[in-house]
Amino acid sequence: MNDMIFGIHPVLEAIQSGKQIDKIFIQNGLQGENIKNIKIAISKIDLRINYVPLEKLNRITRKNHQGVIAFLSAVELNSVESVVPHLFEQGKSPFLLILDRVTDVRNFGALVRTAECAGADAVIIGNVSNAPVNSDAMKTSAGALNHMTICKEENLPRTIDFLQQSGIKVFAATEKTDNLVYSQEMQKPLAIVMGSEENGISQEILKRCDARIKLPLFGKTESLNVSVACGAILYEVVRQNSDL
Amino acid sequence: MNDMIFGIHPVLEAIQSGKQIDKIFIQNGLQGENIKNIKIAISKIDLRINYVPLEKLNRITRKNHQGVIAFLSAVELNSVESVVPHLFEQGKSPFLLILDRVTDVRNFGALVRTAECAGADAVIIGNVSNAPVNSDAMKTSAGALNHMTICKEENLPRTIDFLQQSGIKVFAATEKTDNLVYSQEMQKPLAIVMGSEENGISQEILKRCDARIKLPLFGKTESLNVSVACGAILYEVVRQNSDL
Repeated sequence: MNDMIFGIHPVLEAIQSGKQIDKIFIQNGLQGENIKNIKIAISKIDLRINYVPLEKLNRITRKNHQGVIAFLSAVELNSVESVVPHLFEQGKSPFLLILDRVTDVRNFGALVRTAECAGADAVIIGNVSNAPVNSDAMKTSAGALNHMTICKEENLPRTIDFLQQSGIKVFAATEKTDNLVYSQEMQKPLAIVMGSEENGISQEILKRCDARIKLPLFGKTESLNVSVACGAILYEVVRQNSDL
Repeated sequence: MNDMIFGIHPVLEAIQSGKQIDKIFIQNGLQGENIKNIKIAISKIDLRINYVPLEKLNRITRKNHQGVIAFLSAVELNSVESVVPHLFEQGKSPFLLILDRVTDVRNFGALVRTAECAGADAVIIGNVSNAPVNSDAMKTSAGALNHMTICKEENLPRTIDFLQQSGIKVFAATEKTDNLVYSQEMQKPLAIVMGSEENGISQEILKRCDARIKLPLFGKTESLNVSVACGAILYEVVRQNSDL
């Protein structure tokens, strides 16, 4: 895996040289001056540390990791606070996709591909419990990850507050509603939230959204695949915002 | 693999007892009374024989296959000629999905899941160059394959002729058009054709279709995943045929 670095000094150097870290794992209870330096460096870059048992690190690599493994991001990671104002300045009406704890890397890649095809301006993910932004995601996105702005945020509910304060309506795709996507007016600027494969959208995010929308399900299957559902919803947004 | 049978007598017995065969492979140039009997039995059930070199059979199983390997279908296979009149008799206005040479079993499963959720009445596949209707398809369909009527047809162009003679409009999802799906009226009864991942819809089918439709692509990625594209199109059919 090309996007993995390990060992105290290589990881510290990567952080200090401004490399974009997607995830960092540090062994539980690890002490010492070097670890303190890594933590200080991390505190400056808005990255959450995953503290894990030694066995987990040993499963990731058999080499001498010294209790520290980091994964580089396959693409540049942005922040909503810089991307959204920039979109408005360009005269664009933002069309955003928010992914709340989509953990499967294939689903993540497929969602980025779908968003890129449908003309979304950015995909926003959280800092925890999300799929890695790595070469597998790149592959399943059919390269779309290269062309899509990815924003990674420490606190998604706070991000939604920021979007709403910027005049962007936020719609939750959830089965917990009777409101069909077709009866909901969805004019840009807007953001669509898709939830995790298992638990959907978290309560804290759900309660902040301006409206809930769903696709009708006519069969016996409980749900659509998340990227298929996302495609049908994003293209309904496209339809409503086109001149047809 | 539970759905594989091999050897002359087991395969002959499976055919004669009415088991639904999804695919059959016979070694090139194989002669003899028994093989003749298998061919006669097959000729009665509208199944195409795949003649293959010995090495291919040996790669499938190392056991004594005697030049004959068959794969059972994971579900009952129907014919359009029986299913479509039955739908009309039930007072339904058919909503069908036709898959022209979708070869990837994961895509096939995902397409069946999407069709079942969107309320399609049947999925129609060809007899050659299609993904196997097996346990992998069942798995990737999230069980939807159990609840969907699958029709397997020897000759898809002829099937399309039959559908049109029955008053069913057939729409081709293809990039070879300027006609956006949103500007096309798509009232049931209708069928949507999705093409192969690599080559799209074959010319012979394309020229028969009543209209061509496409989803707009706004990004740099060349295409949507076939099940995502199918979902967006089937749900546009749902929207146009609902009372909203």
